Amino acid sequence: MKILIVNAGSSSLKYQLIDMEREVTMAKGLVERIGIPGGRLKQTRGEHKYELDMHMPDHIEACKQMLQALVHEEHGVLNSMDEIGAVGHRVVHGGEHFTASSLIDEDCLKAIEQNSSFAPLHNPANLMGIRATQMVMKDTPMVAVFDTSFHQSMPPKSFLYGMPMEYYTDLKVRRYGFHGTSHRYVSERAARMLGRDAKDLKIITCHLGNGSSLCAVDGGKSVDTSMGLTPLEGVLMGTRSGNVDPASLQYIMNHLHLDINQMMDVLNKKSGLLGVSGLSSDMRDVEEAAAQGHQRAQIALNLLHNGIKKYIGAYTAVMGGVDAIVFTAGIGENSAELRERVLSNMEYLGVKLDKEKNQVRGKERDVAAADSKVRILVIPTNEELVIARDTLALVQGSK
Amino acid sequence: MKILIVNAGSSSLKYQLIDMEREVTMAKGLVERIGIPGGRLKQTRGEHKYELDMHMPDHIEACKQMLQALVHEEHGVLNSMDEIGAVGHRVVHGGEHFTASSLIDEDCLKAIEQNSSFAPLHNPANLMGIRATQMVMKDTPMVAVFDTSFHQSMPPKSFLYGMPMEYYTDLKVRRYGFHGTSHRYVSERAARMLGRDAKDLKIITCHLGNGSSLCAVDGGKSVDTSMGLTPLEGVLMGTRSGNVDPASLQYIMNHLHLDINQMMDVLNKKSGLLGVSGLSSDMRDVEEAAAQGHQRAQIALNLLHNGIKKYIGAYTAVMGGVDAIVFTAGIGENSAELRERVLSNMEYLGVKLDKEKNQVRGKERDVAAADSKVRILVIPTNEELVIARDTLALVQGSK
Repeated sequence: MKILIVNAGSSSLKYQLIDMEREVTMAKGLVERIGIPGGRLKQTRGEHKYELDMHMPDHIEACKQMLQALVHEEHGVLNSMDEIGAVGHRVVHGGEHFTASSLIDEDCLKAIEQNSSFAPLHNPANLMGIRATQMVMKDTPMVAVFDTSFHQSMPPKSFLYGMPMEYYTDLKVRRYGFHGTSHRYVSERAARMLGRDAKDLKIITCHLGNGSSLCAVDGGKSVDTSMGLTPLEGVLMGTRSGNVDPASLQYIMNHLHLDINQMMDVLNKKSGLLGVSGLSSDMRDVEEAAAQGHQRAQIALNLLHNGIKKYIGAYTAVMGGVDAIVFTAGIGENSAELRERVLSNMEYLGVKLDKEKNQVRGKERDVAAADSKVRILVIPTNEELVIARDTLALVQGSK
Repeated sequence: MKILIVNAGSSSLKYQLIDMEREVTMAKGLVERIGIPGGRLKQTRGEHKYELDMHMPDHIEACKQMLQALVHEEHGVLNSMDEIGAVGHRVVHGGEHFTASSLIDEDCLKAIEQNSSFAPLHNPANLMGIRATQMVMKDTPMVAVFDTSFHQSMPPKSFLYGMPMEYYTDLKVRRYGFHGTSHRYVSERAARMLGRDAKDLKIITCHLGNGSSLCAVDGGKSVDTSMGLTPLEGVLMGTRSGNVDPASLQYIMNHLHLDINQMMDVLNKKSGLLGVSGLSSDMRDVEEAAAQGHQRAQIALNLLHNGIKKYIGAYTAVMGGVDAIVFTAGIGENSAELRERVLSNMEYLGVKLDKEKNQVRGKERDVAAADSKVRILVIPTNEELVIARDTLALVQGSK
């Protein structure tokens, strides 16, 4: 079966067509600037590139253009859109409702909508994407795969905050966690790379990209993760602060006369690598500046490395040990320097990096020294493949 | 020399008179309800108790009554207040100005005042206490000892938040940490108990009371601590939430129509053990209820134990190992159950508790199993003694 993966944002639509016989990507693309001037579709088929400039008034038009590109005589990969057996949608927030991926029906759409208040920028956009594809692919079964559902296995001691219990029971304020599809994929790959059953392994997965989160995966299940109710909590990120003293908000707001929404804007968009370094939210820029002696860039990196190190220590304590530490996503896969700095001085845990093996970018590799008790793995993530597999399983199971 | 230790709150004044020849407490007392009806002074001299009911209009009157009680013919311990060689004051927030204790002069008072914005409930009250004692003991030298100064050795990677750098440079928003006097005392005691030089030790000190903080003490210096700009950050406490997703505040405030000051009131006074259990902020009540099957009490304890465990893991990672874990303050010294639960399943670190030795309350004891690589110490804290020693050293040094 051929499965189309769709990740819809408020003004964009990313897609990928996967042939599930061999689990290979046939084409992938991006529609940008939906509803705003300068609309554009870009699609790649291996090395072959296709670009189309045209105004996309809404997500329905974007979906139509995506399908036309996929069946395009010269640039496409399909003879007919009927070859698409199912569509898998990435949805950010499944709340407590979704502990796994779900076939999309009216109840499912309602539940996604109900969780919109937790992800006001993402869930409504995801819903627009779903409704638009439904409109143009009426009889194709569709599946929703959630960033949060892998973390629904967390126990209360991990998912509750120390707040009045009514905030949880009435408002559903709790830790949900994100990047679940990625944490799940790389922890499963790690078990396979080690030739062991995931059930017997304690793994810490570090998804480090523009947004970053860590996850403690014990016996194949998420038992703790660093992002919380929202993707702001946890380690320092490109533009996000990560953890701060909650009371520091009061101090800053009262001194600078900000309201809570303005304060959140600063913590989400003007903090992190960007705010500390004063230079850039891009890890490559910050690493380059730090190497040239830029002091604030060095401080930003120290903060990030130290924050990740602390989570690794904390999650090892939560699980009572660790068998493997996995690095994935843009920074995790590519920054040898970060991996080296984060794992330095961790011999007390039996963590020993092989600095030469560690010189790898974006490839699966065990970069631990031969005598390291804890394996250190670089694993490129593949969220689309997880979405495609879940979609296939649910669509076949429902027949 | 006899030294008087004063800890002034907005409506209270705690004091202790210490004979520094033998470092013994001669008397201690508390003046309550200063400026409000029902004023009272309580003083103990060993087993001997003295109580006096009288209205205390202000801190000056409270200081006068304190001195009269100390020189009282029947209930006192001194012939004349001239026997008091110096006064040591506890001051909560020393900001970045004070990296150590300080003789009190006008510059010192100004600096304490300047740091009031970080501790608006505490520093002004501490200042009132200092000014009142100066008024009634004109020629007695005085010293300020700060809760924050022990932590001024933290490196930027520990004390900075991932916020725009201007918040630090312009507003001085950073991690300061608290309970420094206690962390310093118990880490020094730990080194002595182990017969080793503090310079060679990596110690994690857990000050767990109504307010709780942990500290990573590497080579005798604080390198990280769990409280931050304010005493709200860190682990769950009696009524304080500890760490939460900063963005959860926005969600709650917008849904319940709270402003930031009301939100802080909830996180400081209605959260923690009290908010989660729905029962009490007192650890003894919560432990008792949990033992009888009260589910929310059990959840509150799980949250607390798990939070402390995570900090122990994190600080071990920060220091690259740990030689000793110290428990102190009301809960740390007295709850054998907490120590057992926090340290369970930590064999991976070489942490092994002796469950029988652990049945101790408020006494110095190494409660680790004989074959534990990491020592586990219960050490009653003694902040007054540290204040007295610093006061003596500064007063003698200045002569």
